[in-house]
Amino acid sequence: MESYVQILGSSSAIPAWDRYMSAQFLNINGAHCLIDCGEGTQYQIKRFKVKASKIDYIFISHLHGDHYFGLPGLLSSFNLLGRERPMHIFGPSALRDVLLSINKASKVINSFPIYFTDTNPNRYETILETEFFSVHSFPLDHRIDCTGFLFKEAVGEHKLLADKLPEGFPYEYMRELKKGKPVKWQEKVFSPDDYTEPPAAPKAFAYCSDTAYTESLLPFIENVNLLYHEATFSKNDFERALKTRHSTTLQAATIAQKAKADKLLLGHFSIRYKSLEPLLTEAKSVFDNAYLAKEGGIFTI
Amino acid sequence: MESYVQILGSSSAIPAWDRYMSAQFLNINGAHCLIDCGEGTQYQIKRFKVKASKIDYIFISHLHGDHYFGLPGLLSSFNLLGRERPMHIFGPSALRDVLLSINKASKVINSFPIYFTDTNPNRYETILETEFFSVHSFPLDHRIDCTGFLFKEAVGEHKLLADKLPEGFPYEYMRELKKGKPVKWQEKVFSPDDYTEPPAAPKAFAYCSDTAYTESLLPFIENVNLLYHEATFSKNDFERALKTRHSTTLQAATIAQKAKADKLLLGHFSIRYKSLEPLLTEAKSVFDNAYLAKEGGIFTI
Repeated sequence: MESYVQILGSSSAIPAWDRYMSAQFLNINGAHCLIDCGEGTQYQIKRFKVKASKIDYIFISHLHGDHYFGLPGLLSSFNLLGRERPMHIFGPSALRDVLLSINKASKVINSFPIYFTDTNPNRYETILETEFFSVHSFPLDHRIDCTGFLFKEAVGEHKLLADKLPEGFPYEYMRELKKGKPVKWQEKVFSPDDYTEPPAAPKAFAYCSDTAYTESLLPFIENVNLLYHEATFSKNDFERALKTRHSTTLQAATIAQKAKADKLLLGHFSIRYKSLEPLLTEAKSVFDNAYLAKEGGIFTI
Repeated sequence: MESYVQILGSSSAIPAWDRYMSAQFLNINGAHCLIDCGEGTQYQIKRFKVKASKIDYIFISHLHGDHYFGLPGLLSSFNLLGRERPMHIFGPSALRDVLLSINKASKVINSFPIYFTDTNPNRYETILETEFFSVHSFPLDHRIDCTGFLFKEAVGEHKLLADKLPEGFPYEYMRELKKGKPVKWQEKVFSPDDYTEPPAAPKAFAYCSDTAYTESLLPFIENVNLLYHEATFSKNDFERALKTRHSTTLQAATIAQKAKADKLLLGHFSIRYKSLEPLLTEAKSVFDNAYLAKEGGIFTI
């Protein structure tokens, strides 16, 4: 199955026009992640029939409430449902304090372990590497410490052209070939170039939640297949974007263009816009392959 | 306008069957209150067009997440909308710590003052008295500290029978009569019995959020016009109620009967019940004037 993102919330700051607060579900190479978790995320998870119990990783970009006020409730529900598998949470260190004060107040003992990793708001860091994918955080330019996240599929295995191999070819050598390594058997060298097809190019998804226009993030998101970049404001509200450290549609599109992204996903819309189509039109004037992050929408990476 | 309660959430612990977490809007003698504030309350406030900006008082019964995880988001939205009028919050003292840790993490400076009053989980206390109503907290029997709330309308003014008064009767003496006090004018005593109609009997509403069956709360809720009492479980799940310090339908109805309440409102339903009608039938077998606290439902006091 292709990696994909499903939008759970697209509103900035305050819920409006049936839009929920920031949250995205990510299935990357079969691993299940939640990115940001605004209030009501667990309702949206139910609404869109996301398999919440399979989520193993939660990434919180920053500690403005519209990006994490749904997290305590989600963790509490996991607990009440008797979850046992560990949860890995990545976010600003102060999030740990907030969760601890909430747990202390409720006197609840979690049914599952939570492993918390602090993100570093000042530089690019690899924060997770598994067999299937890796995650990297990088600084955004917002009013408080805020990080973007880059999700990269791990390089897959080569596909073995088994018909081409001689009879009796050992299984353990096949595994080496699938890893792309040449092997020697019965005095002959078997190159992966001849006996395998190379794996598909690994896909990458970058998530830039809340940020002013900044080209400093370009090195981290270059050539991504899918770029989510906030577009809180219309190009006409440029001054407001500057003041609040947010971006306009044109700025998001410019970043996508300069990063040579394949596809751009716009979100985090201000409540001042009831209709979002004009925002999309603005972005498309700079970067055509742009889409609106509407609730429930699924985007392959 | 008669005092009334509007239900914003009726689910216990976890959202299910389109039921939201505990929250009720109360209009008492024109004052606007919110009682408990589970996750998603601000969405429900929008959905039912409750005038949120007029809410001046918030009462939190205890610190299980399903009763207050919507509070940080609601306060944050008030802030973003530039609210200036003070908010008065009443709840367990640990709530103060949670709100402080959240505020510290977001580095947000509130646009409005918050006055916080600790509730006492161990005894009956008057926690608020205004010209229009008073509020009293009392202990419930739950797994953690938890208080119920009794809301009482203030005694209203007498209605002046102005036609009966002689010409030239001074305005300041009219005001005394409206307060129910006799006055002497031109050597004659004017009794409120003769020149006014007495005010309507003040109404009372009691809110018992999460509690095991306990007759210890009867003195505090005697003769209330409307009693909200949790009924998390069916009578058949009696053991489960006992273990989790919750009540069954029959227990809630028995409390209403013993308290001589006029009307009983059942809520905080476990996710195990999709249909609530059987729960209502159970309660009615003991106390007939019983209702389900369904989302959006309005109940006069």
